Amino acid sequence: MRKVELFMKEKGIEIGDYVEVVEEENGTRVTHRGIVMPPYELSKGETLTIKLDNGYNIGILIDQIVEVKILEKAKPREEISFKEVLPKKPGLPNVTIIGTGGTIASKIDYKTGAVHAAFTAEELAKAVPEIFEIANITPKLLFNIMSEDMKPQYWKKMAHEVAKALNSGEDGVIIGHGTDTMGYSAAALSFMLRDLGKPVIFVGSQRSSDRPSSDAAMNLICSTRMAVEDFGEVAVVMHGETSDTYCLAHRGTKVRKMHTSRRDAFRSINDVPIAKIWSDGRVEYLRDDYRKRRESEVWVDDKLEEKVALIKVYPGMSGELIDFLVDKGYKGIVIEGTGLGHTPNEIIPTIERAVEEGVAVCMTSQCLYGRVNLNVYSTGRKLLKAGVIPCEDMLPETAYVKLIWVLGHTQNLEEVRNMMLTNYAGEITPYTRFDTYLR
Amino acid sequence: MRKVELFMKEKGIEIGDYVEVVEEENGTRVTHRGIVMPPYELSKGETLTIKLDNGYNIGILIDQIVEVKILEKAKPREEISFKEVLPKKPGLPNVTIIGTGGTIASKIDYKTGAVHAAFTAEELAKAVPEIFEIANITPKLLFNIMSEDMKPQYWKKMAHEVAKALNSGEDGVIIGHGTDTMGYSAAALSFMLRDLGKPVIFVGSQRSSDRPSSDAAMNLICSTRMAVEDFGEVAVVMHGETSDTYCLAHRGTKVRKMHTSRRDAFRSINDVPIAKIWSDGRVEYLRDDYRKRRESEVWVDDKLEEKVALIKVYPGMSGELIDFLVDKGYKGIVIEGTGLGHTPNEIIPTIERAVEEGVAVCMTSQCLYGRVNLNVYSTGRKLLKAGVIPCEDMLPETAYVKLIWVLGHTQNLEEVRNMMLTNYAGEITPYTRFDTYLR
Repeated sequence: MRKVELFMKEKGIEIGDYVEVVEEENGTRVTHRGIVMPPYELSKGETLTIKLDNGYNIGILIDQIVEVKILEKAKPREEISFKEVLPKKPGLPNVTIIGTGGTIASKIDYKTGAVHAAFTAEELAKAVPEIFEIANITPKLLFNIMSEDMKPQYWKKMAHEVAKALNSGEDGVIIGHGTDTMGYSAAALSFMLRDLGKPVIFVGSQRSSDRPSSDAAMNLICSTRMAVEDFGEVAVVMHGETSDTYCLAHRGTKVRKMHTSRRDAFRSINDVPIAKIWSDGRVEYLRDDYRKRRESEVWVDDKLEEKVALIKVYPGMSGELIDFLVDKGYKGIVIEGTGLGHTPNEIIPTIERAVEEGVAVCMTSQCLYGRVNLNVYSTGRKLLKAGVIPCEDMLPETAYVKLIWVLGHTQNLEEVRNMMLTNYAGEITPYTRFDTYLR
Repeated sequence: MRKVELFMKEKGIEIGDYVEVVEEENGTRVTHRGIVMPPYELSKGETLTIKLDNGYNIGILIDQIVEVKILEKAKPREEISFKEVLPKKPGLPNVTIIGTGGTIASKIDYKTGAVHAAFTAEELAKAVPEIFEIANITPKLLFNIMSEDMKPQYWKKMAHEVAKALNSGEDGVIIGHGTDTMGYSAAALSFMLRDLGKPVIFVGSQRSSDRPSSDAAMNLICSTRMAVEDFGEVAVVMHGETSDTYCLAHRGTKVRKMHTSRRDAFRSINDVPIAKIWSDGRVEYLRDDYRKRRESEVWVDDKLEEKVALIKVYPGMSGELIDFLVDKGYKGIVIEGTGLGHTPNEIIPTIERAVEEGVAVCMTSQCLYGRVNLNVYSTGRKLLKAGVIPCEDMLPETAYVKLIWVLGHTQNLEEVRNMMLTNYAGEITPYTRFDTYLR
């Protein structure tokens, strides 16, 4: 039993209790009030997590708690079973919702007054009854990871869980995910799920500063609609505007969190979103070059090479960072260059050395929008000559994920180049559409 | 004499000649045609630079040139004098244009058929006669640096050149700059030019893929209009749309190159641009909280600490990168965290160690839009506790430049924190305006 469980046992605190906690640090006392949340499973268990009245979760170090009072006991409730499934309605498609952590799960709970980081079908039904009109929902808690702690090994677990659900007859899968790194995970599953023929929809919720109410419900409804569509790709579904007019479905390899807090933080970059999902239920496709639903056994190609770094170029940057990565045995480096994909000329020798030592060096642009082109200026030509792989209009984050995946398959630099420049999951658009830039 | 000058002498090639060059590399021959450009002054002089018919400059290694033919000699022209000034018209304000390199200078030349990387007043007058109706123009070539090679020591030179011009009676200064790192330089001068009371306008030109014609002329006209306005800050003036309807003046600390190639690549982030400069000459201010022109002696506060790094967080990132920077004696690290300003929990111990060893660690967001907030989630609270300085809604690039400047003044972490959180040049907006997000 971890410190937090011991503490809760000792004080008679249960998940869901409304408590007042006094914390002392260096002689300063701070009082917090909120609902006790389930301890994160993968943490060391040294903090008590409570959901404050404003909806935010905070963790308080057990060692710093000098006083705790239970102001209101949790309402008695049934045993939680994550396997719980409501009776299936005939004629409705079947959708599995996989929980991985993040704000979305807790938001749903917050709305109903429940406090579980995960969710049961019954809780979902109470919180967002609309989704049960769209599909038979099977909720599944895979793990409960904070978005910023996501890493390649979890991508694998997610991919296998998705494949299992789809191959056992589910019509679509929704993945509830923290928003910080949702774009990275969506890109990862886009590459790892091969022969995908059904929708795999990432969804999260943003703490929106302009509204106290949560965006989780509408995002989840829109995700469910997309998960039963005639569509067979990985997409991220989130608010398209701050108000509840519509959500957008973005291709998993072309989407980025562009705002720290707004509901409409997620944007397609260098690409048109796949569809608008209106609040009245209409799904309006914004393009026709997406993959449609089809019969196929999805399989997981999960060979990854994790020794990859993503670094950014800036004036005054030193090449020693690149030397360090090479010395440390990194197999790949994705550079966020300036403009069309440049670095200071001074650091080109370190890039030459990296390539000579077999490290794959890929170029993207910190502009985010547009396409790298190393043929225009002399610096670019030098970089090309040094062996840098220009990643077209790929997002730096997508190029990073892709390089991890590509290097899991081959570390021959010519083959790496070919794979990086092969379009596997819409990560490269063949030409830049004029209407995909921010307005 | 460098290799390129020797080569040109030997072959009888002059700047401005239209040539055909055959290049051979590993047995492959490529033929280029274009106008010979002046060799970059700070390069090793091992390449011949020619401007291709499509307007792009390329550098060809002298050692790889197997054949060169002069197709047309440069038109005979007068001696170049960068001190040349056209007779002043009484009643017009005086503006100095400082050239630092980049596409804008060559673009102007390209338009007139001249081929100098720099420019004389006469050349400017021929290329963009409109600016001589707005002000008496004094052109000045400071250096000719490719944008990607810009670094803090050049920021100092620029700042001193600007101060000299303004303190000797000029009414405004325009700095022609490559676009790749123009945002960084504009931020640097925003911090370094103290008691500034006149306009300092950065301008560049983008190679626009949608139009063969250059955006340099309109950008320069708009810059000149802004340089004579009732305005006393550092700003970037570039196209506001792809067509020639208007330019935007962006505050130097809140602007970012957001597209690799479009004319309207520069955008204000988390802030409203200062003004629209319409093609008919009207200057429409979009806000009223800018500094107006005033009598003051500008001075250069150029104490900089260059041992600063800018790094980006991503799933699977290792803390060894931070350890390395600390071991290498870096004094400051700006982190582009995920979301509200997070890092994987795994690397927090390396951040704690960095701070313990006196390294200033600052947090920004890779979302770019929005504001970091380390109070919302437990990871953020841990980062705060580790001593991380949350940089509000500052751009990562601006925080990097600012930290270089702040650490030049103090390396006491409490003082660094105070300075980082003090608004010196509009880099922090006190609250986030709803209408500053991308649309």
